[in-house]
Amino acid sequence: MDNRKPILGITMGDPAGIGPEIIAKSFLSFKLNQMTDSVVIGNIDVMKWANGIVGKDIPIVSVQIPDLDSLEDGVISVLEIGDVSLDDYSISRVGADSGHAAFKYLEKAIQLALDGKIDAIVTAPLNKEALFAGGHPYSGHTEILAEMCSAKHVSMLLVSETLSVSHVSTHVSLNEACKLVTTDRVLKVIELTNDGLKQIGITDPNIAVAGLNPHAGEGGLFGREEIDVIAPAVSFAKQKGIRVDGPFPGDTIFFHAKESRESPEHAIDCVVAMYHDQGHIPLKLIGFYEGVNVTLGLPIIRTSVDHGTAFDIAGKGLARPDSLIAAINLAIKMVNNKGQTIIA
Amino acid sequence: MDNRKPILGITMGDPAGIGPEIIAKSFLSFKLNQMTDSVVIGNIDVMKWANGIVGKDIPIVSVQIPDLDSLEDGVISVLEIGDVSLDDYSISRVGADSGHAAFKYLEKAIQLALDGKIDAIVTAPLNKEALFAGGHPYSGHTEILAEMCSAKHVSMLLVSETLSVSHVSTHVSLNEACKLVTTDRVLKVIELTNDGLKQIGITDPNIAVAGLNPHAGEGGLFGREEIDVIAPAVSFAKQKGIRVDGPFPGDTIFFHAKESRESPEHAIDCVVAMYHDQGHIPLKLIGFYEGVNVTLGLPIIRTSVDHGTAFDIAGKGLARPDSLIAAINLAIKMVNNKGQTIIA
Repeated sequence: MDNRKPILGITMGDPAGIGPEIIAKSFLSFKLNQMTDSVVIGNIDVMKWANGIVGKDIPIVSVQIPDLDSLEDGVISVLEIGDVSLDDYSISRVGADSGHAAFKYLEKAIQLALDGKIDAIVTAPLNKEALFAGGHPYSGHTEILAEMCSAKHVSMLLVSETLSVSHVSTHVSLNEACKLVTTDRVLKVIELTNDGLKQIGITDPNIAVAGLNPHAGEGGLFGREEIDVIAPAVSFAKQKGIRVDGPFPGDTIFFHAKESRESPEHAIDCVVAMYHDQGHIPLKLIGFYEGVNVTLGLPIIRTSVDHGTAFDIAGKGLARPDSLIAAINLAIKMVNNKGQTIIA
Repeated sequence: MDNRKPILGITMGDPAGIGPEIIAKSFLSFKLNQMTDSVVIGNIDVMKWANGIVGKDIPIVSVQIPDLDSLEDGVISVLEIGDVSLDDYSISRVGADSGHAAFKYLEKAIQLALDGKIDAIVTAPLNKEALFAGGHPYSGHTEILAEMCSAKHVSMLLVSETLSVSHVSTHVSLNEACKLVTTDRVLKVIELTNDGLKQIGITDPNIAVAGLNPHAGEGGLFGREEIDVIAPAVSFAKQKGIRVDGPFPGDTIFFHAKESRESPEHAIDCVVAMYHDQGHIPLKLIGFYEGVNVTLGLPIIRTSVDHGTAFDIAGKGLARPDSLIAAINLAIKMVNNKGQTIIA
């Protein structure tokens, strides 16, 4: 990495949601502007409208791919996507046009990142129903990213000030999630978590693995996955030199991980959750507004807000940009760490 | 209920765990002594030893069943169980003797409550491994209580200052828990929750029901239980006049329930969780030391600590009695409310 500021591609997400508004709000942060050059991948008219909601007069300029190396400070640069119409679009409404547009913004961002034109992708929320309506039947960002980057194994890492969690699975039914708890998958997620934590600047990560069943199976009484599947994965990961322990009961490990941050030498840096809600419930309870979503296992850097399109408050000026600002900050940190050789 | 103080039967739980110690500590609370007459159902020598750990000189006296109507203030009254030996017992160790003893203490407490000799049972923790070793293969207190009280439907309610949760299932594998999410069972737990909340003094309870799958199934994309099973149960419960809504996404409803307490008129009094960890994770994260466990659906009143035997710290004087004190307080409240006709 040379001395230039990291170039972030911020996707506008679903134009009918709170994405445009929180992007406009995050551009008000002078500190972020000093640390990064950013380009919004989206629609310039929607960004102008969002800027109006925020009530500040930041200039909005249209840029093309060759301009990415010389983005202007103090403006919102928008890269538009040809062949995307928002004719049938209105705020707070699930629409095929906005679903398709959100998909195209993300697709373009992934191409730019893979081509090295931008250093990282930061994504505003999209709406899955709209995505489906727009002809793109994906469960979410992660699935699109994994496919377009040909990534075999990915995992969702949620990061907050006092707790971080990664996930063995996310956007599948709980029934299906139980089946995805295999030794291979748990081991892979531990490895991805370890690598990801290093990328966000933790040199010697300490990882705790949650159990799947109540009381981590209570010695086999309430399910055997801990004994047959998870413990072996933890053991293999240890053999690979990873600082990891578990499986621990799900109902207490998140409390202990949070408390552990008070004594840094024993701090648990991340808990590996066995399914979506197991990790999301504690993270959102503690860090509802400031959680950041990182996709582990991609060849590119991608961070995201950890909330949805919030159609109920879109266009009203009420949306908080905290999570997006945290996502931008974390992306900058990851880009800056990437250039360094990290020794565990 | 006449004017006498409620008589609580406090089971000692596993003598090798922190039960005896937290009981001794809770007896130091002058306020509790004023509000209730309590009898410890357990072993007098162990209680004396625990009293020594606490380092206070509360007199310990042995009582018999006929004495329950005239318990002395300012002492720890202990009702011993014949035919229970603690010959092979040592602190912090899983043992058949202590498992069997814990079972017998609970059995006696249930009998006394069913016979009207005590007004409520408050239980200190038992250890499931020891219970099994002692020849009593139950998953926990709840299962023993349900069987001995011939209760067809029970549910675990966890209560804390800022969040309460009840559970569609508890001590079963997550795979099994998914199967227990049926319309009948969800409806029954909503009804038990509504009744239980009234019993703890909430006159017009407001209940939120969590979904089973991520994002409450995302409109059927990540599982159909919300559409096919949970929504109908919520609908039936509404028809019965219960103030209930859902299913809501598990990852945000607990945060919203906690926040809602700030505006009492919209407060969510309880979230119905679909499985053990979904309810326990948020409760323990917020109210780790002060959670109380109430068994809904029994013909008797039973509250409990919401933690385990903590063998790692047993006998060291480190155990906190907060949860037991909260459990005693809640039992007193429930006994006092029981005499009143509650109008929704």
